[in-house]
Amino acid sequence: MTYHMLTEATAAGHLGTIAAICDRLGGTPADWVVQEVGDGNLNLVFLVTGPDGGVAVKQALPYVRMVGESWPLPLSRAYYERLALADQARCAPHRVPALVHHDDAMALTAMDYLVPHRTLRGALVEGLRYPRLAEHLAEFLADTLFFTSDLAVPVAQKKARIAAYLGNTAMCRISEDLIFDEPFFDAPMNWHTPGLEDVVSRFQADTPLRLAVQEMKARFLAAPEALLHGDLHTGSVMVTQDDSKVIDPEFAFYGPIGFDVGMIIANLWLAAFAQAGLRPDMPHDGWLVEQADALWQDFAERFADHWRNLDLADKAGALHALARQDDVLREAAISARLYAIWRDMLGFAGCEIIRRILGLAHVADFESIADVNTRAKCERQALSFGRALLLERDRFPDMAAIRPIIASEPVPA
Amino acid sequence: MTYHMLTEATAAGHLGTIAAICDRLGGTPADWVVQEVGDGNLNLVFLVTGPDGGVAVKQALPYVRMVGESWPLPLSRAYYERLALADQARCAPHRVPALVHHDDAMALTAMDYLVPHRTLRGALVEGLRYPRLAEHLAEFLADTLFFTSDLAVPVAQKKARIAAYLGNTAMCRISEDLIFDEPFFDAPMNWHTPGLEDVVSRFQADTPLRLAVQEMKARFLAAPEALLHGDLHTGSVMVTQDDSKVIDPEFAFYGPIGFDVGMIIANLWLAAFAQAGLRPDMPHDGWLVEQADALWQDFAERFADHWRNLDLADKAGALHALARQDDVLREAAISARLYAIWRDMLGFAGCEIIRRILGLAHVADFESIADVNTRAKCERQALSFGRALLLERDRFPDMAAIRPIIASEPVPA
Repeated sequence: MTYHMLTEATAAGHLGTIAAICDRLGGTPADWVVQEVGDGNLNLVFLVTGPDGGVAVKQALPYVRMVGESWPLPLSRAYYERLALADQARCAPHRVPALVHHDDAMALTAMDYLVPHRTLRGALVEGLRYPRLAEHLAEFLADTLFFTSDLAVPVAQKKARIAAYLGNTAMCRISEDLIFDEPFFDAPMNWHTPGLEDVVSRFQADTPLRLAVQEMKARFLAAPEALLHGDLHTGSVMVTQDDSKVIDPEFAFYGPIGFDVGMIIANLWLAAFAQAGLRPDMPHDGWLVEQADALWQDFAERFADHWRNLDLADKAGALHALARQDDVLREAAISARLYAIWRDMLGFAGCEIIRRILGLAHVADFESIADVNTRAKCERQALSFGRALLLERDRFPDMAAIRPIIASEPVPA
Repeated sequence: MTYHMLTEATAAGHLGTIAAICDRLGGTPADWVVQEVGDGNLNLVFLVTGPDGGVAVKQALPYVRMVGESWPLPLSRAYYERLALADQARCAPHRVPALVHHDDAMALTAMDYLVPHRTLRGALVEGLRYPRLAEHLAEFLADTLFFTSDLAVPVAQKKARIAAYLGNTAMCRISEDLIFDEPFFDAPMNWHTPGLEDVVSRFQADTPLRLAVQEMKARFLAAPEALLHGDLHTGSVMVTQDDSKVIDPEFAFYGPIGFDVGMIIANLWLAAFAQAGLRPDMPHDGWLVEQADALWQDFAERFADHWRNLDLADKAGALHALARQDDVLREAAISARLYAIWRDMLGFAGCEIIRRILGLAHVADFESIADVNTRAKCERQALSFGRALLLERDRFPDMAAIRPIIASEPVPA
């Protein structure tokens, strides 16, 4: 099968040739309902339902969907996505949609149709709350990051996995450019809310800030600590009151653990900064900041517990000396590693906050604030915080030091 | 050609079938003189001379030579060695022997016969001096490490090179075990000079030390900053008064820049600590410490100059923002990066010093001190310094802080 783009009209016919999909949907392709719902920037997404069930089918396009054929992007990202979905499912089976079928030539991945889930970002913009969100995200992070790291995986096996993802350079390159480089010069695709011109000029002339961001980029490039999702913002999380699933790992690669943790926490903080503008009368920024707190605490505890409970019986991770030996050494190692992840997390979160306001890809949280002046004020607060995360990390030894800065910010006048 | 082990008797016949070798040697195989001189731990080495010239021919054995068939080691190390020789030759052509021929199936690599070079370690034990040594080693380090890093190499190309070496796991594993793990527990192959039992017990119970060493191991495992030689001790350097060449890169992989720098500097420091025992009347420890100083300074200056002179015209390294933009940013980045390499260098040097005294692989510098008590005293001083390098790095902001600790140590009474 050579690559061809599916449409709502042709999808059922194609998918009807795949046994795993027929089994799940029941009936015949003529009975199926197909809806193309891709609202992301890159791909086609078909929701296909039949008498017995549904599947979500994602197909990569040979270019960036939101831009068009002028921005080509390799189909191989579908291959890396299904590779990551499988690896993540081994580590955190309850936190990702199960793979139903993949076809690398068609750049097509079929997976669980998540019902009645919705995208976390949209839900947060509406002010909704999810009681188990922090717990679930911490589970995804701790389980995928710990169990693909040198703490858990024998060294030759880990290097083979690093190699398996090293070809996903085109997707990594998007992050390298959009997160670490473009926000700090007059890149053609940058844009920002009117009124922030002074911050833009100041940041572009801010040597310590630019250096700190490039140091995070250097870690992004050359610190294959664990298998990262690589794009873990609130738009990559699907939620219900009882469940949370992480989707869209097409940016997956082996990188620094603090990157995934920092991305998702930054997006909760961005949502919190937007609250004063979104619902000045009843902001739930306090709840959002609590979720970021809880996410970090749950992640840190779960990561530490995995470490304490490591089974060293047969194949030990490369850092087995830190698990096997005395409790004192292991607990010292846990504290040291978690603090290093914390520092990385702050730095990457700082980069994410800045690029979501001054770079190409913005977030609905701020974009949904209708009044431009209010939006600019919220964004200005976030930018100042993002810069502090990169340059004044010593001010933030823990979440307690961060809470008062975001929560209960006065509503911008 | 399937693999078979060459001998002094069969080597000329085999090599006589290879045009590049015949051209270089002249005459016919019957005219050639073959000498097997492998004094390393792993391989066969044949020096082959003919009427017109000579070649050095290295052949890997399927096991560790010094131990025998009970310690198997893959022949693929010959493949990684010739890969590294070629990559290093592109970066630092004057500092490595030129490749003449390779045969991956035979695990065989033919290269320049270095005459009248000798091994640096043996020369240092004899008290010899080489006026251009520091300059040459700095050239090798700065040129190979800078020009294979994200500063100089476009990101997709760098990732492809990382991948090319990721399979060299067996050789990396030797370093992981022997440098970072075994010296800190009662590993069966450890040995030490009688009289050091108290240090052995103390180090094995030293939680901060073991944690610091494991943190260096974590960087060794997951910080592919540049193509490393991977085994850059003074036995891997061949010298004359005018020339220095680095050989034996079979441990090559992408790792932290400070590892290569730290290994070679540690071996100069080890040589310096041995002086008081080797020639109490006329030690040249001061000269050795000066060489370590000069090596670092020359390396730092050359690395910085490469950075300043980067040609960004066509294909830029991933960290191009640090080279292209204003001088203030670039100079700040150079200082920050060199200080990070310095800190890594200290940590890796500390690991190397300790493992060369308490682990499996010792150095001739100390082993040549006939008197056991004197040797133990020299080694004890080195061990104490090695521990300080790992645990008190803040004490050593530069070489000036280190010089007085090693040079002019009183001759042990």
